[in-house]
Amino acid sequence: MSEYRGYEGNSLKFLKANRIAVGDYVRIVADITYSGIIMPRYEHSDDKHIVLKLKNGYNIGLEIAEIEKIEKNLVTEKIIEKSEWIKKSEGLPKILLLSTGGTIASKVDYRTGSVTPVLSAQELNASVPELAKIANIDAEVLFSEYSENIMPKHWLQIAEKINEYSKSDYVGIIIAHGTDTMHYTSSFLSFALAGFSIPIVLVGSQRSSDRASSDAALNLIGATKFITSSNTNGIYIIMHQDENDKVIACHIGTRVRKNHTSKRGAFKTIGDEPAFIITENQIQKNIKEDFFKTNEFHPRIKLDTKVALVKYHPGYEPELLEKIIEMGYKGIIFEGTGLGHIGKTMYESVKKARNKGIFLGMTSQCIDGRVRMTVYESGRDLLNLGIVPLENMIPEVALVKTMWAIGNSQNIEEVKKLMLENIALEISD
Amino acid sequence: MSEYRGYEGNSLKFLKANRIAVGDYVRIVADITYSGIIMPRYEHSDDKHIVLKLKNGYNIGLEIAEIEKIEKNLVTEKIIEKSEWIKKSEGLPKILLLSTGGTIASKVDYRTGSVTPVLSAQELNASVPELAKIANIDAEVLFSEYSENIMPKHWLQIAEKINEYSKSDYVGIIIAHGTDTMHYTSSFLSFALAGFSIPIVLVGSQRSSDRASSDAALNLIGATKFITSSNTNGIYIIMHQDENDKVIACHIGTRVRKNHTSKRGAFKTIGDEPAFIITENQIQKNIKEDFFKTNEFHPRIKLDTKVALVKYHPGYEPELLEKIIEMGYKGIIFEGTGLGHIGKTMYESVKKARNKGIFLGMTSQCIDGRVRMTVYESGRDLLNLGIVPLENMIPEVALVKTMWAIGNSQNIEEVKKLMLENIALEISD
Repeated sequence: MSEYRGYEGNSLKFLKANRIAVGDYVRIVADITYSGIIMPRYEHSDDKHIVLKLKNGYNIGLEIAEIEKIEKNLVTEKIIEKSEWIKKSEGLPKILLLSTGGTIASKVDYRTGSVTPVLSAQELNASVPELAKIANIDAEVLFSEYSENIMPKHWLQIAEKINEYSKSDYVGIIIAHGTDTMHYTSSFLSFALAGFSIPIVLVGSQRSSDRASSDAALNLIGATKFITSSNTNGIYIIMHQDENDKVIACHIGTRVRKNHTSKRGAFKTIGDEPAFIITENQIQKNIKEDFFKTNEFHPRIKLDTKVALVKYHPGYEPELLEKIIEMGYKGIIFEGTGLGHIGKTMYESVKKARNKGIFLGMTSQCIDGRVRMTVYESGRDLLNLGIVPLENMIPEVALVKTMWAIGNSQNIEEVKKLMLENIALEISD
Repeated sequence: MSEYRGYEGNSLKFLKANRIAVGDYVRIVADITYSGIIMPRYEHSDDKHIVLKLKNGYNIGLEIAEIEKIEKNLVTEKIIEKSEWIKKSEGLPKILLLSTGGTIASKVDYRTGSVTPVLSAQELNASVPELAKIANIDAEVLFSEYSENIMPKHWLQIAEKINEYSKSDYVGIIIAHGTDTMHYTSSFLSFALAGFSIPIVLVGSQRSSDRASSDAALNLIGATKFITSSNTNGIYIIMHQDENDKVIACHIGTRVRKNHTSKRGAFKTIGDEPAFIITENQIQKNIKEDFFKTNEFHPRIKLDTKVALVKYHPGYEPELLEKIIEMGYKGIIFEGTGLGHIGKTMYESVKKARNKGIFLGMTSQCIDGRVRMTVYESGRDLLNLGIVPLENMIPEVALVKTMWAIGNSQNIEEVKKLMLENIALEISD
């Protein structure tokens, strides 16, 4: 049966009239001529467009009123057939691949650069034949969301799912994830699953318009190699180190940020080298410490989303902070300036927050470097107001950790204690 | 007459009893022994502490109850006497030095690393004798604020002051400024003073605890060399390129960020080399374009602070955005994820903002790279909701520019037009 997922009204009629369905490789004549694959549509869609995935990996919307001609393309790209799906080899280590959505969860033949709109983890696995030579991979779709739509509830869902496998025979778990908020997810897992005995690796794909090939396959191969050879545990993000397809970087899940909107090497470990560098023939280890403070697996899979991130800037109105206080927030992470400062116009509102028992943490919008609130008088004032300096924790990580700490504490003293405990290398030297 | 600025009650009594005043070089025996200079105190101070500036440049507060002994240090550091103040030499170019406060506005003898708590621009100038060989510097104190207390009203004050000199015989203007919010100030000046014919350079000091010498002198010398030799105009920030004291970087005022809390080389041009590199014997020019789009000086020294910066993250509650709308904000700059995304949970609130005529701009929390909202369906949804993608404008710069654009426009269409006009290289290729 043909598939028309997400299409309705005019666009559905248009596709049916032309005997085209989702997944078909087509040629479209409009203002210019396009070739690509018809993609399913998601919510918030109108019925005036169809979505085409181009060979370069980008989706474009085409207005049906402007389409002169649409036809199935006969010169189809090689599509991996189910029969080609990877057979498992005895004796290879077992890995679990969970898919959550994002660019990576498009089926990609990295040799040709063609993509098909099939989103299952199993197919993701099958589309990269090299993986089967390294490990036997079981695949499972958890959900399918662009990463900007991944919410704290999804973090809980991922953590609960992984928790089910705490005593499995998998040697590691790969999570295919959209790149935008990957480092928020990796942070949550680092705290919620502290002590988990096998490595958990988040992998994504940064498609760049100037490159026909996808980086998804290479990142997946890197993750699989890492899991089977590195003999470590922890939560990591594995992505290209830079534009070079031969060097894959493995970042500590609590020390990494997406620092570029589109480059392949967008992810960077802040203030340090990546924990591991994976190349064709070797894995170079840079990390010296154990990932987790604890060796015991002690899942704490709870959180409280009533935490606000306040990026201070000249002209920031204290009234905005007052609103946050009134709305019943339990934690506020400041992205202060420099060594961890906010203007003195904020002091009265900060006092109110403290008096209401709200946890107040200080990070720096510099991103790199440590907050030090004893250097200038203004910093000392803020310490007196009860703001807790969070060392060199990245602001986004501090936000996630506060959500987690409040969800797993009985009172603000416990929250403060957890926030300054270095659980998963979120604070570095 | 001895000076006790900011001291009162017990701490004032303590100083007087020991015949010590602000500016004295002292030796204090407490838990350990400290040597340094007694600093003036600022508001929000208690009367239980005195403040000592250590040789490494840091201020520490010492509780008087814990001080065993305090005495003037006889082995005083070389202090520059008024008689040594620099005489002007005929024929040298004229520069105006405006002081606004910050670490740099401590008098510093960079050869010995000693610091005295004298804050005037004239003394700042006098403390770096090399300057007099390059230029005749007139100095003026505008105000004295740590940079986290510098507000949009201070930007206006600086711009108005500079505007007075639009037809002077100065070849350039140096602004001594705290480093924390220097790039916000440089952005405002870039828009408000577009077309200003001589270079305006912000200079600060990043004191690092492991170095006895100050970087202030070197940055000031770099700025003076730049102004007298570069034959250009524009608004720049001049600071150390890295830890190397021989290389000074000159950054475009709209493309620069403080990216490290404490390093000397904290300031970085985002996504590019610094515009100029200043070394002992040469100035290397990397910038290819003119700084300003316009050659005509056309000051627009107004702003409206009713602009909010919303950094989106998983769990960001749309109710927070609703509060901002209710509070009468006229502009909202989103720091979206990746290519410029916010979750679909935000869409309804964004619609409300649009319907109220609020200017909505999109930047990326990746900091580096361009937003591109046509790549994914979610981005296209946001475009439909009226969010304006701000190319690769740095979020902080977009915030300042929106304040400025709203202050200088009659309606939202004018605001949109100004926001996408590349006025001072805030958008780069």
